[in-house]
Amino acid sequence: MRPSQRAADELRPVRFIRHYAAHAEGSALIEMGNTRVLCAASVEESVPPFLRGRGQGWVTAEYGMLPRATHSRSPREATKGGQSGRTQEIQRLIGRSLRAVTNLAQLGERQITLDCDVLQADGGTRCAAITAAWIALHDACIHLRAQGKIAVHPIRDHAAAVSVGMVGGNPALDLDYAEDSTCDTDMNIVMTGEGGIVEIQGTAEGAAFTRAQFDALFDLAQGGIRQLIALQKAVLADG
Amino acid sequence: MRPSQRAADELRPVRFIRHYAAHAEGSALIEMGNTRVLCAASVEESVPPFLRGRGQGWVTAEYGMLPRATHSRSPREATKGGQSGRTQEIQRLIGRSLRAVTNLAQLGERQITLDCDVLQADGGTRCAAITAAWIALHDACIHLRAQGKIAVHPIRDHAAAVSVGMVGGNPALDLDYAEDSTCDTDMNIVMTGEGGIVEIQGTAEGAAFTRAQFDALFDLAQGGIRQLIALQKAVLADG
Amino acid sequence: MRPSQRAADELRPVRFIRHYAAHAEGSALIEMGNTRVLCAASVEESVPPFLRGRGQGWVTAEYGMLPRATHSRSPREATKGGQSGRTQEIQRLIGRSLRAVTNLAQLGERQITLDCDVLQADGGTRCAAITAAWIALHDACIHLRAQGKIAVHPIRDHAAAVSVGMVGGNPALDLDYAEDSTCDTDMNIVMTGEGGIVEIQGTAEGAAFTRAQFDALFDLAQGGIRQLIALQKAVLADG
Amino acid sequence: MRPSQRAADELRPVRFIRHYAAHAEGSALIEMGNTRVLCAASVEESVPPFLRGRGQGWVTAEYGMLPRATHSRSPREATKGGQSGRTQEIQRLIGRSLRAVTNLAQLGERQITLDCDVLQADGGTRCAAITAAWIALHDACIHLRAQGKIAVHPIRDHAAAVSVGMVGGNPALDLDYAEDSTCDTDMNIVMTGEGGIVEIQGTAEGAAFTRAQFDALFDLAQGGIRQLIALQKAVLADG
Amino acid sequence: MRPSQRAADELRPVRFIRHYAAHAEGSALIEMGNTRVLCAASVEESVPPFLRGRGQGWVTAEYGMLPRATHSRSPREATKGGQSGRTQEIQRLIGRSLRAVTNLAQLGERQITLDCDVLQADGGTRCAAITAAWIALHDACIHLRAQGKIAVHPIRDHAAAVSVGMVGGNPALDLDYAEDSTCDTDMNIVMTGEGGIVEIQGTAEGAAFTRAQFDALFDLAQGGIRQLIALQKAVLADG
Amino acid sequence: MRPSQRAADELRPVRFIRHYAAHAEGSALIEMGNTRVLCAASVEESVPPFLRGRGQGWVTAEYGMLPRATHSRSPREATKGGQSGRTQEIQRLIGRSLRAVTNLAQLGERQITLDCDVLQADGGTRCAAITAAWIALHDACIHLRAQGKIAVHPIRDHAAAVSVGMVGGNPALDLDYAEDSTCDTDMNIVMTGEGGIVEIQGTAEGAAFTRAQFDALFDLAQGGIRQLIALQKAVLADG
Repeated sequence: MRPSQRAADELRPVRFIRHYAAHAEGSALIEMGNTRVLCAASVEESVPPFLRGRGQGWVTAEYGMLPRATHSRSPREATKGGQSGRTQEIQRLIGRSLRAVTNLAQLGERQITLDCDVLQADGGTRCAAITAAWIALHDACIHLRAQGKIAVHPIRDHAAAVSVGMVGGNPALDLDYAEDSTCDTDMNIVMTGEGGIVEIQGTAEGAAFTRAQFDALFDLAQGGIRQLIALQKAVLADG
Repeated sequence: MRPSQRAADELRPVRFIRHYAAHAEGSALIEMGNTRVLCAASVEESVPPFLRGRGQGWVTAEYGMLPRATHSRSPREATKGGQSGRTQEIQRLIGRSLRAVTNLAQLGERQITLDCDVLQADGGTRCAAITAAWIALHDACIHLRAQGKIAVHPIRDHAAAVSVGMVGGNPALDLDYAEDSTCDTDMNIVMTGEGGIVEIQGTAEGAAFTRAQFDALFDLAQGGIRQLIALQKAVLADG
Repeated sequence: MRPSQRAADELRPVRFIRHYAAHAEGSALIEMGNTRVLCAASVEESVPPFLRGRGQGWVTAEYGMLPRATHSRSPREATKGGQSGRTQEIQRLIGRSLRAVTNLAQLGERQITLDCDVLQADGGTRCAAITAAWIALHDACIHLRAQGKIAVHPIRDHAAAVSVGMVGGNPALDLDYAEDSTCDTDMNIVMTGEGGIVEIQGTAEGAAFTRAQFDALFDLAQGGIRQLIALQKAVLADG
Repeated sequence: MRPSQRAADELRPVRFIRHYAAHAEGSALIEMGNTRVLCAASVEESVPPFLRGRGQGWVTAEYGMLPRATHSRSPREATKGGQSGRTQEIQRLIGRSLRAVTNLAQLGERQITLDCDVLQADGGTRCAAITAAWIALHDACIHLRAQGKIAVHPIRDHAAAVSVGMVGGNPALDLDYAEDSTCDTDMNIVMTGEGGIVEIQGTAEGAAFTRAQFDALFDLAQGGIRQLIALQKAVLADG
Repeated sequence: MRPSQRAADELRPVRFIRHYAAHAEGSALIEMGNTRVLCAASVEESVPPFLRGRGQGWVTAEYGMLPRATHSRSPREATKGGQSGRTQEIQRLIGRSLRAVTNLAQLGERQITLDCDVLQADGGTRCAAITAAWIALHDACIHLRAQGKIAVHPIRDHAAAVSVGMVGGNPALDLDYAEDSTCDTDMNIVMTGEGGIVEIQGTAEGAAFTRAQFDALFDLAQGGIRQLIALQKAVLADG
Repeated sequence: MRPSQRAADELRPVRFIRHYAAHAEGSALIEMGNTRVLCAASVEESVPPFLRGRGQGWVTAEYGMLPRATHSRSPREATKGGQSGRTQEIQRLIGRSLRAVTNLAQLGERQITLDCDVLQADGGTRCAAITAAWIALHDACIHLRAQGKIAVHPIRDHAAAVSVGMVGGNPALDLDYAEDSTCDTDMNIVMTGEGGIVEIQGTAEGAAFTRAQFDALFDLAQGGIRQLIALQKAVLADG
């Protein structure tokens, strides 16, 4: 039995608060158990230097964590003089994942930045960020179309993410902090609504893992992502 | 008439969500109109080097703003390599204000850090931070007493803050962004429950101001702070 | 009696050396008791990005302190990787104070930077910097007019600053380091030649202060600033 | 046919120069086609603060690239003020991969740092670094045993890495720069001598990929890693 | 007798590997005893801001050292947030020395950067860097002429450098680390093929030195540089 | 004839103001023509980590320049995030030069830091700094002896510095800015009271220089340094 009494293939309770940030073109606060991430999309009418004049847009992300989002306080990155390697790794993952479902040509020469800030952390923050940032991105594109700036909504498909891992020798879906900090193998998987794989990041924390274990974990993740995408659809339908 | 239709001496609606941050020893989310600030208190069982061995504690604060808390996105301080002068000025003010009502000797050799992060900005964020951080600090001290680490609750009095300013030639209480960005004189005042003055910061943005204008602004602030302290008391009474 | 044997309303001896910096468009070294600050004005024929094309100029300030200006050596900010929060707070105050008496439209699209470097510190350095920087700024404008770059001298009024504080329970003018480091309440006030208030920064270091104490301190400051402005006029008259 | 005329499952020519760095406790220069990486192991008789007193060691890595290792010159990270997110991501991967095959308790309270510096880049630098760093780490442990500092050689198994990707719709092993910069899916896989999986990092650069494509890529990688581990064994056997 | 058994006027064995870096416009790896430096020349079709529009080019250098180039590991400058004073001093010396033999007008408005990275250090790295960077610079100019970008080869003369010092009271040529770390006086001299002096940097490490000692050291350096320039000529002749 | 009408071997007027900095253990302001440098010595009762427990002291220096010390304003190093390569090169030179005449064992385990800040620059600032810092260092040692902290005054000899250069084809002593910015060869020489050479730094700015030119420049410098040391002695004699 898992510490949280959940079944192996059971997600934590998920809640979205759409339009949480009044000033942003799109935003969503996600609560995934005790993990709480605020994602806000900002549209900028220019692209980074390496894309200028190519007639396409860009989607990027930044990730942060409030100092007391965690069990004990972590120093503020702004006072340490820069973002940590972990932060940069996560925000690069979020950006890549969202670009994989965006038609950058249809977006036009503009950039959408997804700010994903963890208000409270209990495991799985990068996956929660991807799942909620997809809603913020989606809504920013609705905003652009409403303004007449783009003709076609450029998001091609849903994208969502979940963590899986070997906990006490058994595969488990959507690890919380208690599981994440003790598991043997930790994997984050990002998939699309059509079931395509966008990203797989699997790490043996202790012993190496086998192909059979990989297969079991992948199957769990696939099921969890299907549920998350169903929730994204419900949120959009709610208006 | 003010842009927000408020009377000259009228605060914006104020709401506190106490215990918002699950991991922190004390916390409060304050909503003051559209301004939204999350304050979390973290206890650390050591003091900064300059205080070691003196048998007293320390209270300090850090201030931050999510990139899209504002109308247009601001770069993240963690990616700019450091905190701005404005940020440091604000967090120094918050720390000083809270220390003024804390008996540092009763706190013992430990430090409480108040992280004040602006989730949404519509004027008056530093004042809202002080008013909510006081609750977080208060609750962290309750926590310390419950743990038996301190014998006496070391907070001597309430502290709250409000901004006032000359808007269109008239004194006004609790400026929102629309007023703050056009006013002639801007003043932030911090006071205690007993009516003592902790901090006055008044700045002529355009023309210099007179002693009579100062007096009118001060009186407005005094009234606003009395209301805020009454609200703090109500929050604590609610449990 | 004050440690320096001065009366409560007595300034320290003040001396200006005008034109101290040969290369600067305007400059003054101020000695206020043992505090010694060199202020140099530099004219640059461009404005910061946020002002370009608006047909107005800008006045800004930078503040620094030689490592051994103080009783014990302080690390050089250039070796610590940046300016401290205190330094930035002070230079922002100096810049705001001087802009309050400058007609920026008459200055034209150019910037004047006031570098205020403390050669020796004995309390009141930020106030001494404002009082001397006003002379440097004034002289830089004379220089611009002599060159035919501006038609009208854009400085509208004098500006000077002084510190006051409650020392041993009594209000005192122009605190030196011995008083400043032990006082209960510390206030810096900036005023114009016409008696307008430009900035009030009052802080309770220990106990909160009362409205009556504020009034007494303000009156002392007003008297001190009148004397400093008379000295500024004498310096300019000397040629 | 691949640009390099290689078969889909064909590695580039691999050459190791063991003991390349005279001062290091272990070192190897790897040439994998035109990619050239120098890995040096440094033993330090202390561990990072988070491990002190736990009776175990640590293995970590740092990654760098000479400015002109690439087709066009890249700015030196030392002049940009820090390591990029990509650099940190890579060095964290190298460290994790090597720790997965090290018995840290047998290493004792000491740290081995693997410096992996790319002298010339033609794709696959992080995989080449892992494969060569394993030799440097292994030799540093031989050195420690020869000195009598450790009783048992703490490296439990080989570790090697290779990249695979979908190039022009076909799976291919060990991508060079021409392939890497145009492929649809890019995957880096780290495995042990016994065939355990240490790390899988798969990214859809353009379209999402399918489970069947993943399987094909994984099989190619497995075959490549077997060859690399055979080469590691040959190098060690050569003495 | 010197620790290395060399005569006072004897260089260490010198070997150049020309064209070591495949991507660079010019490059050379120099081995001078156990000192090993890789120099790569990169051509950029623009000049630094202070030279724009003047119709002349620029030659500059950057210097680095792999962390384990030295007996014990040194922290990577990229992780320390910047280049040390020593590094900057050395790269400024290399750049000045090469500019002294380059006709910058004939180079045209382009910049050549010489990256000099020490793979292994055993004394004399800055001198070895100058001697090898000259070859890399020379070859980059051959490349520019072959491309038809410049009409005349702009390198006016050879340049090479060597260290000399008082070791155990006796003058010695080309100090290795064992000598360099114990010598009384250390001098680096850069000269041209025609025998002109480009740079002299002499430092008394312990006691001051005399004019007669300077003369003896200078004579040794002059002889060593003649040999190094003969070796440069041989390398170029080899093709 | 030189721009300043001086003879080839003529120093600019030199003036010292000893004890300029009230808080420092030793200090001197030097005026050398229009160059004005303030040097302050600070004693610290500890040594840098690499010297701890060796029973000897350390002498080091830091160099800075006020932003408007120069003809046009230079950005403040504290706002640029660090000291420039030039600054570090100069302060390393000052420190080395003073250590060469200090008996570090007699100084005991303490450090003296010489802060050399240029208030006004007209060429030769690093040499002026060395010459004045020697006085500050000397006086700090007097202070230590007066306090009974050291038994023997540890300064073994005078040290002073001067610049020389080839100006318009002729050797000239003590270059001012007008000469320094146009000269062909620039050399800074540091010598002791007994005539020993501490440091020679000679650079060909344009064409390489000959041994005969070096000899002429050296002779000029030797004469200038003798005069400077006579002035140091006069200052000390004045009390």
